[in-house]
Amino acid sequence: MRKPSGSAALTRPMARLLGAVLACALASAPACSPGNGSAASRYRDAADRIRDMGLRDEGAIEFLRRITAAGPRLTGSAEAAAAVEIGRRLMLEMGLDRVHLELVTVNRWTRGPKEEARIVGSASLGTVPLAVCALGGSIATPDGGLTAPVVEVGSFEELDRLGPAVSGRIVFFNRPMDRTRLDAFAAYGGAADQRVRGASEAARHGAVAALVRSLTFRVDDHPHTGLMTYAEGVARIPAAAVSTAGADLLSSLLKKEGAVSVHLKMGPRDEGPVPSANVVGEITGTDLPGEIILLGGHLDSWDLGTGAHDDGAGCAVSLEALRLIKALGLRPRRTVRAVLFMDEEFGGTGGRFYARAAERTGERHLAAMESDRGGFLPLGLAGGSDARAARRLGRWLDLVRPLGIDSLGPGGGGVDVGPIVRQGAVPLSVIPDAQAYFDVHHSALDVLSAVGPRELEFQAVILATYAYVLAQEGI
Amino acid sequence: MRKPSGSAALTRPMARLLGAVLACALASAPACSPGNGSAASRYRDAADRIRDMGLRDEGAIEFLRRITAAGPRLTGSAEAAAAVEIGRRLMLEMGLDRVHLELVTVNRWTRGPKEEARIVGSASLGTVPLAVCALGGSIATPDGGLTAPVVEVGSFEELDRLGPAVSGRIVFFNRPMDRTRLDAFAAYGGAADQRVRGASEAARHGAVAALVRSLTFRVDDHPHTGLMTYAEGVARIPAAAVSTAGADLLSSLLKKEGAVSVHLKMGPRDEGPVPSANVVGEITGTDLPGEIILLGGHLDSWDLGTGAHDDGAGCAVSLEALRLIKALGLRPRRTVRAVLFMDEEFGGTGGRFYARAAERTGERHLAAMESDRGGFLPLGLAGGSDARAARRLGRWLDLVRPLGIDSLGPGGGGVDVGPIVRQGAVPLSVIPDAQAYFDVHHSALDVLSAVGPRELEFQAVILATYAYVLAQEGI
Repeated sequence: MRKPSGSAALTRPMARLLGAVLACALASAPACSPGNGSAASRYRDAADRIRDMGLRDEGAIEFLRRITAAGPRLTGSAEAAAAVEIGRRLMLEMGLDRVHLELVTVNRWTRGPKEEARIVGSASLGTVPLAVCALGGSIATPDGGLTAPVVEVGSFEELDRLGPAVSGRIVFFNRPMDRTRLDAFAAYGGAADQRVRGASEAARHGAVAALVRSLTFRVDDHPHTGLMTYAEGVARIPAAAVSTAGADLLSSLLKKEGAVSVHLKMGPRDEGPVPSANVVGEITGTDLPGEIILLGGHLDSWDLGTGAHDDGAGCAVSLEALRLIKALGLRPRRTVRAVLFMDEEFGGTGGRFYARAAERTGERHLAAMESDRGGFLPLGLAGGSDARAARRLGRWLDLVRPLGIDSLGPGGGGVDVGPIVRQGAVPLSVIPDAQAYFDVHHSALDVLSAVGPRELEFQAVILATYAYVLAQEGI
Repeated sequence: MRKPSGSAALTRPMARLLGAVLACALASAPACSPGNGSAASRYRDAADRIRDMGLRDEGAIEFLRRITAAGPRLTGSAEAAAAVEIGRRLMLEMGLDRVHLELVTVNRWTRGPKEEARIVGSASLGTVPLAVCALGGSIATPDGGLTAPVVEVGSFEELDRLGPAVSGRIVFFNRPMDRTRLDAFAAYGGAADQRVRGASEAARHGAVAALVRSLTFRVDDHPHTGLMTYAEGVARIPAAAVSTAGADLLSSLLKKEGAVSVHLKMGPRDEGPVPSANVVGEITGTDLPGEIILLGGHLDSWDLGTGAHDDGAGCAVSLEALRLIKALGLRPRRTVRAVLFMDEEFGGTGGRFYARAAERTGERHLAAMESDRGGFLPLGLAGGSDARAARRLGRWLDLVRPLGIDSLGPGGGGVDVGPIVRQGAVPLSVIPDAQAYFDVHHSALDVLSAVGPRELEFQAVILATYAYVLAQEGI
């Protein structure tokens, strides 16, 4: 750029251009501001070594294989207990420091025998089986099941308008995840109220059960479970998810025939509190061992698949990040800790226990890096609670840019690290491609073979790089 | 920004900052330069409608279902002929203009009976089967197969150093795709020489066959085929791909036992030229029908899977892009044309025939948008032959930004549109995530269920948006 020679050097168009240019520069400060390169460049060699070893070894998928080998890890189940022991053993095998379990008292809910459901009394089709599953937390139907006419609604408002007309009936919540929403999590959030609150909303008007369209973009025969809750002071009625193909069939029959009944039989049980554990291991910091960079995922899963994406992946990448740091002989100044949390799916018990455990005395958590968005290709990072915090974290973005990571916006966090973030830890998360996440989420499709070893490793490499740099530099 | 008040207004640090800022602005010109928003904003409504309809309908996966229903579409096969008819019918069903076939004379190579291979005479394991497949274009082994000691090499240089020592032996090319390369296509390119040229390089030193490690990051039992060629004046020897798991086993035995032989039997045949066709259909431009915006993929595939990603996906998204433009009643000023090319896999015969066909007389191809990188999530665009051309195409980037597309670098093109690009068409391609592409590429794993309907539709929406805008605006 030539040096301007007078006071009018910046003509109006030029000033306008510079205004636009500066706006751009501010919007993407980590990429543009001079000087950032030099801070990150001190860690270039470490980042390259982490990346090369990670991509060559693909260790994350091996951790995931070991974790999913425990089977479906429903909170409070024998399989979840086995996974706790597997997690502990994995940490010991890789030589982590201070590997231990921290008690978490969880609630045990069991699905009982395979659910049964069928459309009955269709004039055109007679009896047709439906693929359903009890929602997590639901009560059972009466022993022989229940049969009732079905009323379809798209929203709680529509339900309220129908009011007493749903009394004695099964309310069928059939609002799909909106495919035109580009953020899959937003599409999920826009339909999840039906699953979480549908039963109580229907029960207020005297319904006998709730049947909820599965939360997925796909149309297939796999029901997707997930947590539901009962409102205080409202009668409790059974709640099940129906596959999207089943929901489409049921809806089309209701349109064509007006009245259709469904028979539903399921036997889940609430079995009360049982002891379980978070699994904790770390590379203790050489200089500031009480300052913690936390990485974690949740070890429990739903029981239809083996929770490979949700959230075996988060546990696996956390473990792999520590393995990479350790195997490369990097010696973090602050403590880098992995926590495999118990019971995210029923509300985050493990995260709450962790934050208030006696072991936290004297510890200060600087960063909390939760991974619970599936093991897909990382597209960006989210961290800090505001743009300023995100910019601070963005100082290191150059180190992960070779992996396709160009942005770090405000956000991060999750159910497990929520309590520790409220105590002051800065959240930071890898944001993976989520377009296929809900295809498998909470269903029988969420198994090891659905996870790409390389995509998973990209996540681990990014976590290891950030964890190491933050352990050296603080935030 | 305040207006500088004197000649020294731009202090040295300030000038340096502006320098950095301008460098950033130039690097990401489409995002920053003022005025771009306004050009693109004229098409905001059309882009929104294309996106909403595309994501709601997910029509691309239906096209892919119809195409892959023809089966494996090896050039010159009955299945490829069936796919030509399916493609023609799909174009007619959606009411395209001027739907027709254009003759392409292709060479027919057939695999023959399922290949057999086994390790023989291992001291520790005895006889062990190997998963292999003939490479495309290979000759057969003698009728009863051949058995010879194996020599492993990692490169042609290593082969040349061994020289006559490989005479009478099977040369086993075992250099893996380098997982530490972040660009999967670059990792593929860094290993593909073994598959393409290995046989002749080995034959120069008297080898009797070539066995090539499959080109994939994964270690599994699926051999991956692909084109090989024979050098002029060198003896032709059979060439096969071995699965990566088989390659690892063979390599470990060679290390442990020193000498291991392999028995290989395969019966591919070159059956000479047969007639085939490109499938062509269009939305004829209202004002400038002779100016063409071309979209295309290749209809032929390898024969182990059903070529869903490679390249049924490219055909499907091209068809879906035209469907979206037509279904929304958008009337392009220039012609938007879809071409399903024949015989990309054996060297691009269809693309060459298309470019020199009599039908091209009086036509001018402005843009050529080839899709042949798998049906995965789009991460960016590549187009034009240099930065200036890329910037021109980047004027419309705002329209696809909601789909996560933030960049358009120089590049694009491909085997099929190469000849028409050399005649002046500007190449433009969607660049999808390729990290998992080679997991399935040219193998039995490349089937419909490996393609995500939503990811595929993202591609179609981007193509439709760009095709429509370029048809209105030119380049």
